[in-house]
Amino acid sequence: MQNALVILAEGFEELEAITVMDLLVRANIEVVSAGLIPGPVVAARQTVIVPNMDLDEALEETYDLVVLPGGLPGADYLTKDSRVIALVREQYHNNRLIGAICAAPRVLIAAGICHDKTLCCYPGSLDQQDTTDIQITNDAVCVDGQIVTSRGPGTAMDFALQLIELLEGTAKRETVEASLVRHQKPEASLCI
Amino acid sequence: MQNALVILAEGFEELEAITVMDLLVRANIEVVSAGLIPGPVVAARQTVIVPNMDLDEALEETYDLVVLPGGLPGADYLTKDSRVIALVREQYHNNRLIGAICAAPRVLIAAGICHDKTLCCYPGSLDQQDTTDIQITNDAVCVDGQIVTSRGPGTAMDFALQLIELLEGTAKRETVEASLVRHQKPEASLCI
Repeated sequence: MQNALVILAEGFEELEAITVMDLLVRANIEVVSAGLIPGPVVAARQTVIVPNMDLDEALEETYDLVVLPGGLPGADYLTKDSRVIALVREQYHNNRLIGAICAAPRVLIAAGICHDKTLCCYPGSLDQQDTTDIQITNDAVCVDGQIVTSRGPGTAMDFALQLIELLEGTAKRETVEASLVRHQKPEASLCI
Repeated sequence: MQNALVILAEGFEELEAITVMDLLVRANIEVVSAGLIPGPVVAARQTVIVPNMDLDEALEETYDLVVLPGGLPGADYLTKDSRVIALVREQYHNNRLIGAICAAPRVLIAAGICHDKTLCCYPGSLDQQDTTDIQITNDAVCVDGQIVTSRGPGTAMDFALQLIELLEGTAKRETVEASLVRHQKPEASLCI
């Protein structure tokens, strides 16, 4: 069974985080949610979520996938947490998957793993970062090696489905997608 | 300021509930989440959410909109709760909005407010209900008077946006929708 860690910082975007967590569970991937500190976490739109554990405890395991939800100030708290930066680097250098959506790609840039990479993100959310050696696209989901990025709440479902496809294959992705009863078809939404 | 009550029963579909709560907050609608009993609620895919209050306390106020998320066994707990049934009837007879998604339209049928109405729901989720005087469509969102229904996680965003449009108008809906960075266009998704 593959596993995934979703890190929840105060002010995370609850729709992005829950979309990923819900869909990964539907795909029979073990999901661990972890707060930066022990206890409930208040999301960007005031939803209060109780994570499975805090990050110190979560870091006793390794994960096939680490997911960083967006939302502000959540993504900035992730950027400033040395444990998150170290985890992202370790994940990258061990060729394991990293997913970041909305404002969270800034964490990957802060970790120094995006040189010559192609990313997508929430429009304008990387304006304060040095992106001179990064290609930023307007795709809904962008896969560059083991770095998977996406734009925002409206693309979170495609992001989660792409992560499922990378971890569990196309058939599992299609099974999960069918269970959602989507009425939209993505339009030119993926760059790989 | 308009207000909305979202009722969270054990086993509710977290993606549906959070999508509605997140988007209503983006539209500056006051959102109250209430559990059937005090304390945290475990959702269908194991997310643990701390509601604002329990239902007894929430029922001290009235709401412009009452939302019933789907998910099982969540929707069945809603159906069996006499307070929820009484609230749905009161909401209906006072011409206030009711939203139900996925398996939750069965609550509206149990409350006896669906005679000659047009609804949509999660495929197959009303098989055990008496739907002889109800029209069931395959649209993503269905608006019949003040009853608004939808099909599942994949249509939750359209459902939430439709509720915003009914409460706050088209301009507010468009502002919220633009903030989401959607990459899909609904196809023949709405019946009114």
